[in-house]
Amino acid sequence: MSKNAELPRRARGRPQLRPDDETRRLVIEAARHEFHASGYAGASMAAVAQRAGVSTKTMYRLIPTKAELFRCVVSERISRFILALDAAAYATLPIEEALERVVLAFGTLTLDEETIALYRLVLGESDRFPEIAATFYDAAVHRTTEAMEGWLRVQCGRGLIALDDVPMATGMLRGMMIMEPQRAVMMGLQAAPDSAEIAARAGACARLFLDGCRRVPKG
Amino acid sequence: MSKNAELPRRARGRPQLRPDDETRRLVIEAARHEFHASGYAGASMAAVAQRAGVSTKTMYRLIPTKAELFRCVVSERISRFILALDAAAYATLPIEEALERVVLAFGTLTLDEETIALYRLVLGESDRFPEIAATFYDAAVHRTTEAMEGWLRVQCGRGLIALDDVPMATGMLRGMMIMEPQRAVMMGLQAAPDSAEIAARAGACARLFLDGCRRVPKG
Repeated sequence: MSKNAELPRRARGRPQLRPDDETRRLVIEAARHEFHASGYAGASMAAVAQRAGVSTKTMYRLIPTKAELFRCVVSERISRFILALDAAAYATLPIEEALERVVLAFGTLTLDEETIALYRLVLGESDRFPEIAATFYDAAVHRTTEAMEGWLRVQCGRGLIALDDVPMATGMLRGMMIMEPQRAVMMGLQAAPDSAEIAARAGACARLFLDGCRRVPKG
Repeated sequence: MSKNAELPRRARGRPQLRPDDETRRLVIEAARHEFHASGYAGASMAAVAQRAGVSTKTMYRLIPTKAELFRCVVSERISRFILALDAAAYATLPIEEALERVVLAFGTLTLDEETIALYRLVLGESDRFPEIAATFYDAAVHRTTEAMEGWLRVQCGRGLIALDDVPMATGMLRGMMIMEPQRAVMMGLQAAPDSAEIAARAGACARLFLDGCRRVPKG
């Protein structure tokens, strides 16, 4: 029995339209679920439109192909990592703390259950759809590698670390942080690590990368 | 026109039989090719027998199931690595050379095109056949990890390195050495690295693992 007078009234005339970028976001979110549920081959554009609650016409206008939809899903996921890395260049922190945060952000992105499912989809279906491997490589591997490599180069420039081959070292850092837990999840042998496990691994990874494990003989 | 008198003559009576272990080897070799060509789901026991040139009856007597055949293929491949590691405990070498040989043996095993294809088969089909993930994990990941972990523990015991968490450090060492090149091959983006590339990576990996990259300030 409350009065509705204070509720905003629907504008008259032309119906209010949702801005395209918001609709786009809904479509990408729906595509994320659809790829997760049905794989790449099995995902249908119609099902994505339905999940998103938009007409197929609108969807095709915004994102015209499944390949593009897949690229958007990957990019959206990776952007969060790039933002995390940019937002904190960590320039004021001691290098071990800063490196720990870099690998923590990387681990949080890549050891997430959904990212692993996406990666597994790529590995499983890139035989039939080589374009998804290329997309994943460009939009995920290459972009995150570039960000981490850039960060390491800055530290070299500051004279804090020395690396003969920055790209190779970047790859090694990435492999240290994620290979084994990622594989265990991909094989269905373990659940994705929780944030405490990822944090512990990030700390150990940063220390080992900076200082190695050789024991300097006393005396 | 040479005289054949010196050639061994075929024994009379009962035809000479091939020893079972030799036939087994032929069957495993044929299975390796069959899995490579047809995947796990697509591989048929009859096709393996035919490739091996043995009767299906003989094959079933020696290796009764496809799951067991798969285990044999994986084990056979891993045994070479375990042998390489055992044969050279490298105890007399300086630790950096010894570690380089350990990761070189590991890289040579795991960055081989066929090993990568086998791993990819596991990732691609373990949804439908969880037993192949379990087999691959037991017969490959676990065995090689144990061997490397054992080697690192010995070095800790000798006081040459210090590691808080040997299993975690082992996983990091493995990831450093192989993740990135392995992935590039799995995604069909690069050819498998040649032995010179693997060797260069093994050297860099051993140095980074032992000494890190922190630059000790002069003075």
